[in-house]
Amino acid sequence: MLIVMNRDATEEQVNDVIRMITTCGYTAHPIPGGERVSIGVLYNKGAVDDALFRSMPGVKETIPVTKPYKLVSREFHPVDTIVRVGDVSIGGDALVIIGGPCAVESEAQVMAIAGHVKAAGGDILRGGAFKPRTSPYSFHGLGEEGLKILAKAKATFGLPIVTEVMDLSCFDMVEAYADIIQIGTRNMQNFSLLRRAGESKKPILLKRGMSATVDEWLMAAEYVMTEGNTNVILCERGVRTFVRHSRNTLDLSAVPVVKRLSHLPIIVDPSHATGYRDQVMPLARASAAVSAHGLMIEVHHAPETAKCDGGQSLLPDQFAVLCKQVRAIFEVSEGREL
Amino acid sequence: MLIVMNRDATEEQVNDVIRMITTCGYTAHPIPGGERVSIGVLYNKGAVDDALFRSMPGVKETIPVTKPYKLVSREFHPVDTIVRVGDVSIGGDALVIIGGPCAVESEAQVMAIAGHVKAAGGDILRGGAFKPRTSPYSFHGLGEEGLKILAKAKATFGLPIVTEVMDLSCFDMVEAYADIIQIGTRNMQNFSLLRRAGESKKPILLKRGMSATVDEWLMAAEYVMTEGNTNVILCERGVRTFVRHSRNTLDLSAVPVVKRLSHLPIIVDPSHATGYRDQVMPLARASAAVSAHGLMIEVHHAPETAKCDGGQSLLPDQFAVLCKQVRAIFEVSEGREL
Amino acid sequence: MLIVMNRDATEEQVNDVIRMITTCGYTAHPIPGGERVSIGVLYNKGAVDDALFRSMPGVKETIPVTKPYKLVSREFHPVDTIVRVGDVSIGGDALVIIGGPCAVESEAQVMAIAGHVKAAGGDILRGGAFKPRTSPYSFHGLGEEGLKILAKAKATFGLPIVTEVMDLSCFDMVEAYADIIQIGTRNMQNFSLLRRAGESKKPILLKRGMSATVDEWLMAAEYVMTEGNTNVILCERGVRTFVRHSRNTLDLSAVPVVKRLSHLPIIVDPSHATGYRDQVMPLARASAAVSAHGLMIEVHHAPETAKCDGGQSLLPDQFAVLCKQVRAIFEVSEGREL
Amino acid sequence: MLIVMNRDATEEQVNDVIRMITTCGYTAHPIPGGERVSIGVLYNKGAVDDALFRSMPGVKETIPVTKPYKLVSREFHPVDTIVRVGDVSIGGDALVIIGGPCAVESEAQVMAIAGHVKAAGGDILRGGAFKPRTSPYSFHGLGEEGLKILAKAKATFGLPIVTEVMDLSCFDMVEAYADIIQIGTRNMQNFSLLRRAGESKKPILLKRGMSATVDEWLMAAEYVMTEGNTNVILCERGVRTFVRHSRNTLDLSAVPVVKRLSHLPIIVDPSHATGYRDQVMPLARASAAVSAHGLMIEVHHAPETAKCDGGQSLLPDQFAVLCKQVRAIFEVSEGREL
Repeated sequence: MLIVMNRDATEEQVNDVIRMITTCGYTAHPIPGGERVSIGVLYNKGAVDDALFRSMPGVKETIPVTKPYKLVSREFHPVDTIVRVGDVSIGGDALVIIGGPCAVESEAQVMAIAGHVKAAGGDILRGGAFKPRTSPYSFHGLGEEGLKILAKAKATFGLPIVTEVMDLSCFDMVEAYADIIQIGTRNMQNFSLLRRAGESKKPILLKRGMSATVDEWLMAAEYVMTEGNTNVILCERGVRTFVRHSRNTLDLSAVPVVKRLSHLPIIVDPSHATGYRDQVMPLARASAAVSAHGLMIEVHHAPETAKCDGGQSLLPDQFAVLCKQVRAIFEVSEGREL
Repeated sequence: MLIVMNRDATEEQVNDVIRMITTCGYTAHPIPGGERVSIGVLYNKGAVDDALFRSMPGVKETIPVTKPYKLVSREFHPVDTIVRVGDVSIGGDALVIIGGPCAVESEAQVMAIAGHVKAAGGDILRGGAFKPRTSPYSFHGLGEEGLKILAKAKATFGLPIVTEVMDLSCFDMVEAYADIIQIGTRNMQNFSLLRRAGESKKPILLKRGMSATVDEWLMAAEYVMTEGNTNVILCERGVRTFVRHSRNTLDLSAVPVVKRLSHLPIIVDPSHATGYRDQVMPLARASAAVSAHGLMIEVHHAPETAKCDGGQSLLPDQFAVLCKQVRAIFEVSEGREL
Repeated sequence: MLIVMNRDATEEQVNDVIRMITTCGYTAHPIPGGERVSIGVLYNKGAVDDALFRSMPGVKETIPVTKPYKLVSREFHPVDTIVRVGDVSIGGDALVIIGGPCAVESEAQVMAIAGHVKAAGGDILRGGAFKPRTSPYSFHGLGEEGLKILAKAKATFGLPIVTEVMDLSCFDMVEAYADIIQIGTRNMQNFSLLRRAGESKKPILLKRGMSATVDEWLMAAEYVMTEGNTNVILCERGVRTFVRHSRNTLDLSAVPVVKRLSHLPIIVDPSHATGYRDQVMPLARASAAVSAHGLMIEVHHAPETAKCDGGQSLLPDQFAVLCKQVRAIFEVSEGREL
Repeated sequence: MLIVMNRDATEEQVNDVIRMITTCGYTAHPIPGGERVSIGVLYNKGAVDDALFRSMPGVKETIPVTKPYKLVSREFHPVDTIVRVGDVSIGGDALVIIGGPCAVESEAQVMAIAGHVKAAGGDILRGGAFKPRTSPYSFHGLGEEGLKILAKAKATFGLPIVTEVMDLSCFDMVEAYADIIQIGTRNMQNFSLLRRAGESKKPILLKRGMSATVDEWLMAAEYVMTEGNTNVILCERGVRTFVRHSRNTLDLSAVPVVKRLSHLPIIVDPSHATGYRDQVMPLARASAAVSAHGLMIEVHHAPETAKCDGGQSLLPDQFAVLCKQVRAIFEVSEGREL
């Protein structure tokens, strides 16, 4: 942290701040400037409570400097992490495409959609058995029956499966079926769940919180990693802004920023980001164009009957066209010839 | 929901929309307008998936009309809910003041601060035994030891206690000690936790999520109420915006809006909203001025040694002055003579 | 507008609302629903003041329905507008690339950069002679001297030029030199300037305001069009959100949304949206992937000496690579074979 | 600015950064830390382009330190500025109340409302003769006729008048009639207008831009002050956020923050901030509770006939009650006995 003093701060005020820094167990490094003194705070472990200093006489402002995460940081681990699930590698040279319904509704539904995903060249099957819903009166998923249906689709089509875990009480069950365990946007700072995920041997797909900064998101991944699970995949899914024409605002700058700060793979979910079918295809292409490591897309063969988010699901034909487009765009974006 | 058709929508397109409404099990009510046809969707239970209709030919846009909550709604329950905890009534004619440290650190600390809160005329003691923290490397609370310290302070000073529950696994324990169980901002949409809270006999203090709309917040309260617990207190604590001079932006309009929409009591936490001591006092007064039913304020007698959020805690003297100011302002705001 | 009444609204309250609608000169259309009455407001010209009705007894809420713009609307003008500037068509089948420095600094600088833009296959040259700056102490542009330099570059390289007009007082001068007149983000609701732009014979490039909704942006274009100038190009340049890792958050959903609502061409400026060179290239590719009609990119051959925004300018080599990538991605996105 | 290097940055990379700092004409101050080197940039005038450094090898991030404003800063001018208009002092010990209609509609209307404002104890009369409107089809004000009506009300009731200037072309005219010249939210960064305001002898009321940070707002005031006009009053009027239950979100933290950073007076406009009559009264009280120097409130005796914003205007009786409440609350907040 850097503490900036007022231009007319007295020597005594400067010394008081230095003393407080020492009291807190840190080291003070005063920097005489052109107009004012600033004081660096060194050797702190974790974040320093800036409000403590900001209320001292003579202090103009306080500026955080170091990021508190370590394990997720590219500084501490310069090489890209590649998460392997069956034959699929996430974080490597190829774009990974995850497709499937928002919610598992029936065996017939999942088998039909999984067939389309496979035929279009999708790599992984998605589908929710436990659904977090804003309203207690909405459909909340089939539970273990849904997981069994996903397992059957996996056995039939050879697609690994990713599915969401909603809470601690269903974690063991989800873990037993899933190839990748998804932690949803509303749970990004459910720290108990993150710690449990850290004890799992399965890769974790960690969605960005609806209003999380990249730093908070990486700190959430740090929670998982501190417990020993290094296979974390980050998933950008839009953030909440004043904009009303899409459900959320997809923050595609987050992809190059995360790649700069962290070694973890990052994918994008344009379906939940936009909420409307006619926005999903362009935004999916855009996600490939920023060199995300993968995409997660909702697909439904009969969206008008879907129990959840039918209106944002692509039809199988649209998904098939999209798969070709995004793979071509990804190659161009990675600087490879087509 | 209202479906607005294009000016040049054909009769066939209008009929297709009406047919889809019927397929979904709702009733269609076409409204011929000056320039265009709109179609009302009636008798739906819960939210209608607007994206489904928005992608149909001839549809210009879709507009949600009814709110999906019932139990929390003033329409269904016109009389104010008053939550009683010991001798304290929250939601009635008097302003309720909750004070105490961010985190329980030691018996000496809590007893000292509880004494100050009592002396200043505070009604309820706050203090966290389980602390959700952005970083896995921060202090996470004393756990049950902290709850026992709070119980001792309660016994000594006669102040009911409010404390946060972080997850399902510690719910029973927190429930055993707390007079009011707090659900934090990051857990506002932890639906499993909300359902468990709904089964409790203790009142629930439900903080607004960092980027939750009032509707989402009321839906979270609806989750608690559907399980049978009608004693829910809402707590505004600031929302995330582009503003950087305070930790969050306190949304005081939410107070009159919630009072209009719901019968539940609403209080305000200016300490977490602002994050800086010199903003807490004015914003606390502002919260009384909008006729919130209560305030929750962090107090610490030695903030420079606090393990958490010392810089936003008021000193005991500041808290004592504030208590007098906010009670006077509340009386003025309620239209009573001083 | 739709006025939703409370479930228990009396007949008298409903009648009062209907009377007020009539008083305001509109037509009321009551819609008896399952649980409550709603009342449509028809034949209004322009926006209805919803707050007027919202404060009447028995009213639950008011919901705006029709959009107030006409001339910009695809409903009233279904065919895409194509803006022609010299040999360049904006809004047609080809991606238009605008490149150049943020600010005109010297003849040598502009001629060097224009040569790079031309060589890389750029279509139009950009460069600011009048620079709106947050600080009064920053560089504010060369004024008419800058315009003359742009004219010379145009004559030499055959590139049409786009440059910003800052206020009414310099409009005539800018108009005399520019092929396209840019109205910047801070002036999007400078209504006097918009009206003057509407009287011009030159096409107008209208940047989205920093926190403008798409509706407000289209209304700003409506101002220009009401004065008779139909050649308006919209430019998405990012909006202000809580995100701090980029200067703004590029809202790429706006591209398909604007294309749905309006016939006007829409381009994207990823340079100002992101503010950092390493984000410009991926976000420029993303803009082509959502089928924007064009891109506006800052290029500088010696960014470390730039008087403005050097750090977000691409180097000429980067720009040349990018031009190839975005043209290839645009073709893929438009469904054409490569 | 502070430049933070990577942990493994080489000495050469550090030296390159130092060289670039020198090239730009600044002074480099390296700070060897626990884990990494940081480099302070000193003696810069105005803002440093951080993007320039951020793209250099070995650089982790760049952190702005000093604020670029001077004249508005409390550091350079520790004593509160008090703006005097007739007998009214803004920025001193008393709360200043500005009331009046949104727009001047007729002489009868203004005279009626001015009478109510005067009777309730209001200090200044507001009313718009030039109205910036989102739609070109809305009412845009009476122009000079409106100014003459305001002058008549001033002569009759002895209330100074504040009215908005929309652009350069009407500045002289507005200046001739107004006691305080208002610059609206959409013009906060209309730099030509700010410079013209700086040449005026009349005080300027500068509204905060819809998505402006406090720093940008103070920089806008700096524009006015650099031209010689030191009588600037700042006006908080809500910012744009994701919240939809009020027109904007009133950012009351801005009041203590501005008072800390600047010597200029700051008032609040709760009418435009909220947009709904039932929110105006509580938020007006809240504004007094944070010790704003004044309030600006819309009042209308017949809001259902208002040509602009009738639904957010208080009725005269409500305004009279409010005046008493806010004066009482202001006294309490300033620590004075009632």
